[in-house]
Amino acid sequence: MKNEIKIFSPATVANVACGFDVLGFCLDTIGDEMVIRKTEKKGIKITKIEGYDLPFEAEKNVAGVSALAMYNALQPDCGFEIEIYKKIKPGSGIGSSSASAAGSVFGMNVLLDYPLNKTQLTNFAMKGEALASKCEHADNLAPAIFGGFTLVKSACPLHVLELPTPSDVFATLIHPQIEIKTSESRAILPKDIPLSNAITQWANVGSLVHALHTSDYKLLKDSLNDVVIEPYRKQLIPHFDAIKKASLQAGALGCAISGSGPSIFMLSKGDATAQNVEKAIRDVYAKTDIAFETYVSKINTEGIKILK
Amino acid sequence: MKNEIKIFSPATVANVACGFDVLGFCLDTIGDEMVIRKTEKKGIKITKIEGYDLPFEAEKNVAGVSALAMYNALQPDCGFEIEIYKKIKPGSGIGSSSASAAGSVFGMNVLLDYPLNKTQLTNFAMKGEALASKCEHADNLAPAIFGGFTLVKSACPLHVLELPTPSDVFATLIHPQIEIKTSESRAILPKDIPLSNAITQWANVGSLVHALHTSDYKLLKDSLNDVVIEPYRKQLIPHFDAIKKASLQAGALGCAISGSGPSIFMLSKGDATAQNVEKAIRDVYAKTDIAFETYVSKINTEGIKILK
Repeated sequence: MKNEIKIFSPATVANVACGFDVLGFCLDTIGDEMVIRKTEKKGIKITKIEGYDLPFEAEKNVAGVSALAMYNALQPDCGFEIEIYKKIKPGSGIGSSSASAAGSVFGMNVLLDYPLNKTQLTNFAMKGEALASKCEHADNLAPAIFGGFTLVKSACPLHVLELPTPSDVFATLIHPQIEIKTSESRAILPKDIPLSNAITQWANVGSLVHALHTSDYKLLKDSLNDVVIEPYRKQLIPHFDAIKKASLQAGALGCAISGSGPSIFMLSKGDATAQNVEKAIRDVYAKTDIAFETYVSKINTEGIKILK
Repeated sequence: MKNEIKIFSPATVANVACGFDVLGFCLDTIGDEMVIRKTEKKGIKITKIEGYDLPFEAEKNVAGVSALAMYNALQPDCGFEIEIYKKIKPGSGIGSSSASAAGSVFGMNVLLDYPLNKTQLTNFAMKGEALASKCEHADNLAPAIFGGFTLVKSACPLHVLELPTPSDVFATLIHPQIEIKTSESRAILPKDIPLSNAITQWANVGSLVHALHTSDYKLLKDSLNDVVIEPYRKQLIPHFDAIKKASLQAGALGCAISGSGPSIFMLSKGDATAQNVEKAIRDVYAKTDIAFETYVSKINTEGIKILK
């Protein structure tokens, strides 16, 4: 039995256009690395954080909070040290806190010889996520832990559905280096929405799930629409409409806000198209004075990975 | 080439709990019979109506209106006579007008050697449906014409998705012999709904589609919930809550209003359970002074059928 593992904890995209608060998918080339180490000394200790300035106290760090929740429930005869090599910028809208919250419990579960299943791990990770977002949600955690496309049917009790991933779907992302406060992106949403828009949205969710099951890329394209949330939140993201237009012209199947933004994601059929889309959106942002990063990634159907 | 066919045009259930305005499924043992006959004399003529008192003038009869729309578009070198043996009571909430509107165009299409596909037929049938319900919708027409479970992704342009039907799903229905005006059942609905309820509803639509693809009966049960429409419309249906409670206790996977009511449907795993559910709901209504009919049916994956 190993006493230490190194893992890759991936970035994730929540909402996926039509599926606000329920759909998500997992990225492959973007994510944090973490080392989890079993110790004789009991307790949870964060011993290293690189990349971003985050608290070392376990109870103030999302990775620590989820680890403590799992640790206190299982009461193992050992302790754990956690090293975090943070590469996903906090507040980027691609599941930075989820990667941390999921990574620690995933690693501990491996070192304890898998006492918990993925749903149980997600439940503990939600405790860490709640520290970051003030509510226990799983729309980034589920794809990080289960991989691929996921649907969180309900958060309490937690019920995650693993949706199929068509083999040729690739994601492109742009992360404008601006800050959107989660409180602001929540506050901008209406409490009530027109029934007619809700009907359009649930038709799209149903057809998106059908498209994933049937690898129907044309239907995927027709389903990746958000008539409920995007009209409000896009106001917070500079040049959103230009990015969307350019990405669709470059062949993207769809383009929408990743989580609560500011990142924007596109899905495409094939790596080559995803690369073309990246070029097109870089051209849009290069003309602005906003710093940005872009990424292309296949869909990660495995989720968190053990390295080496 | 035949000059006359007799068809079975089935009853259908629209909405299917969570999928208001988009989901539907097709019944097997409940439906109208129609005879469509090619004539040398041009035009559309309704020559016989049995069962219910409906107008013979083609332009005032839903079967006639859809037939005329198709006839005027195709301009064939013949005419058609239509006989309607109406068994689905108008206003029952199980697609009575859809059966008529779909049956005439389906029959004409066969006699003309299939010039139109199912989507085109549904488009013409929508013209007839509009006469009955004042709007062109396809949530009953799509399952009647395509069979099985359907999702109307959009009505304009019409885009129907054929969902898979798990082999062991059976429907039970109760039709209380009361009248609900379509105008009333529409007027009772709110224009706006809470975003939180909409999220629950689209999570259920997504998981229902996933359940149909994976033949997951437990998930089907968990998905057959309507938090948006049922709280309003159930007020129009006497003893709805008692029927729902009794059917679920008898083993139904779910119970909800069929279309805009007054019929109520249940889905069950297996014919035997569907029969038990029928007995349970008969017991509820037998104690009231409201006349009622009940039915058990497998899901009809074929849709409209040619008889003999």
